[in-house]
Amino acid sequence: MGYEFDRDTAVTSTGAGTGTATGTGEYAASLAPGWMIGGGINGGYLLAVVGAALRAASPGKPDPVVVSAHYLSASVPGPATVSTRVLRDGAGPGSLASLAAEVTQDGVPRISALATYADLGRLPDDVRTTATEPVLPAVEDCVPSSLAPEDFRRTSPLLDRLDLRLDPAHAGWAVGEPSGAGEIQGWLAMADGREPDPLSLLLALDSLPPVTFDLGMPGWAPTLELTAHVRARPAPGWLKVRHATRNLAGGLFEEDCEVWDSAGRLVAQSRQLAKAPRSRT
Amino acid sequence: MGYEFDRDTAVTSTGAGTGTATGTGEYAASLAPGWMIGGGINGGYLLAVVGAALRAASPGKPDPVVVSAHYLSASVPGPATVSTRVLRDGAGPGSLASLAAEVTQDGVPRISALATYADLGRLPDDVRTTATEPVLPAVEDCVPSSLAPEDFRRTSPLLDRLDLRLDPAHAGWAVGEPSGAGEIQGWLAMADGREPDPLSLLLALDSLPPVTFDLGMPGWAPTLELTAHVRARPAPGWLKVRHATRNLAGGLFEEDCEVWDSAGRLVAQSRQLAKAPRSRT
Repeated sequence: MGYEFDRDTAVTSTGAGTGTATGTGEYAASLAPGWMIGGGINGGYLLAVVGAALRAASPGKPDPVVVSAHYLSASVPGPATVSTRVLRDGAGPGSLASLAAEVTQDGVPRISALATYADLGRLPDDVRTTATEPVLPAVEDCVPSSLAPEDFRRTSPLLDRLDLRLDPAHAGWAVGEPSGAGEIQGWLAMADGREPDPLSLLLALDSLPPVTFDLGMPGWAPTLELTAHVRARPAPGWLKVRHATRNLAGGLFEEDCEVWDSAGRLVAQSRQLAKAPRSRT
Repeated sequence: MGYEFDRDTAVTSTGAGTGTATGTGEYAASLAPGWMIGGGINGGYLLAVVGAALRAASPGKPDPVVVSAHYLSASVPGPATVSTRVLRDGAGPGSLASLAAEVTQDGVPRISALATYADLGRLPDDVRTTATEPVLPAVEDCVPSSLAPEDFRRTSPLLDRLDLRLDPAHAGWAVGEPSGAGEIQGWLAMADGREPDPLSLLLALDSLPPVTFDLGMPGWAPTLELTAHVRARPAPGWLKVRHATRNLAGGLFEEDCEVWDSAGRLVAQSRQLAKAPRSRT
C-alpha cells in the first residue's frame, strides 16, 4: 500500500451480504479528495474504486474485462459503500464472471455498474490488432499538465497524482487555440512511480482532459456512461493515451479512448457518453 | 401492432413491482423465434425487447439514449420476464432517467442492463459531427442477405425480417474471399416496411454479420457486452449501417457500429465486446 492509487482505491468488506464466492457483498471505500479535477472527483478514479470492489467480489478472476458504469450523481470526497452482486460465475481456465455494483454515499446512488471479470493471464494469446499506436513526440517534448494555470490547479489535485504529458499538437486549447479536431493524446504515468495494471487502466481511460477542450468548449463535461474494455495486462512504463470524439449532438458527445502500453500493445479501450459543456467559443 | 418488430418486442406489465413512475416494474415478453440467426436469438432484437420494457418503465422519457447490456446466457424462444428498476429520474425538459433491467427465462438470468432514457425530441439541436457517412454502392448494387446459402437460411429466420443489402467490397467472405479488413457495411430496412425509430435502432446496431467474417473467421461470435448510444430520432427510409473491429486479442474482439439515417445523420453508435469464433481460415 505504498502507492497513492492503491491506498485510495482500497476497499474493506463490511461483512454484509451473502459472501464473496457467489451472491452479494458490501464494501466500504473512502473517496479521496486527491483525485478531484475542476471541483469534481475524476470518473476514472471512481471506476477504479468500483473495479477494486468487484475484484474483491470475484475470487480467482481478478481482472476487469468489461466495466459499464452509469454515473447517477456527483460523488463527493468521503465514505462510500459499494454493493456487489455476482450475476454469473463461470468455471475453468479463461472463464468469466459477471457482476453488478452500486456505489452509494449516505444512501444516495452515485454509480451503477455491470462488469465482466476474468484472469487476463489465462485468456488465449492471439492478437490481430489493426489499430495503430498513437504517434507522440518524445515525453520531454510534450506539455506537462503541471503547467496548468494556478487557479485550475487549486481545484485539481488530480494533476499531482498523474504525470501527464500532452501532445502539443492538441494542447493549443490551453492557450486559447484549440485545434478543432476533437482529439487529445499524451503520455501517462503515476506521479509516484506506481506501474500500470488492469485496475489502474480504468483510471487511465478517463485521465485526459475532455476532448471538448480541443473543440474550443471549455468547462466540465460530466460522464453519463463509460464502458471500459481491458484487453491485456500492461507492461511497466509509460502509457500512451489517446481519445477523440466524432459526434457531438443533442448536448451530448461520445468519447472513445485507447491506452497503449510501453510494449506497443493496445491494452484498454473505452467509449463514454458525456454532457457537452454549455460554454463554447 | 401491424409490424413484426412491434409485435415481437411488445411487453405487458405483470402488475408486480412498485409501479412505473419510480421504483420497480416487471414485464412479460415473448421472445419470438423469427429473430434467430444461426441457431441463436439476435442480440439486437433482445436489446430492443429490453428497450421496450425500459420505455414502459420510464413515462415521459420514451427514448433510449444509452443502453449497456451484458449478455449472461443464451436466450431461447419463448416467455421471458424483464424486471426494471428506476435508479434516478430527472425533472424538466431534456432531463434524463437512469434505469436497470434484468431479463430472465424460468428464473435463469439472460441479460442484465443499465440504461439512460430521455425524450430525444427535447434535447438541444446542436450537431458537430466529424464522423463521415459511409459511402455505399446503390441499394440495387449491394448483396441482399437473401442470397445466403439455404442451409444457413434454415436456422436464420432473422434474414426474412430484415432487408439487408451488403456492400460487395466487404461481402467476399460469403464466397470464401474475406477482405481481411474486419469491416462490414450495408443498407438496412425492415422487410415489412416498418420505418426506423429509436427502439429499432437498438436492433440495427447488431444486425450485420459479425466483422470476424471479414477477417476469415466464420462461426458464431457471442456478444459479452454491448453498449448502444441512440443520438437522434431517425428519418424514414433506408439506414446505412457500418461496423468494424480494430482489436482482436485474447479470444475477444471489440465491434464498433454506427447507423446513419436517410437524412445523412449519425443516429446511433455502439461498441460491443464479443467472443471470437474458434475457427479461422
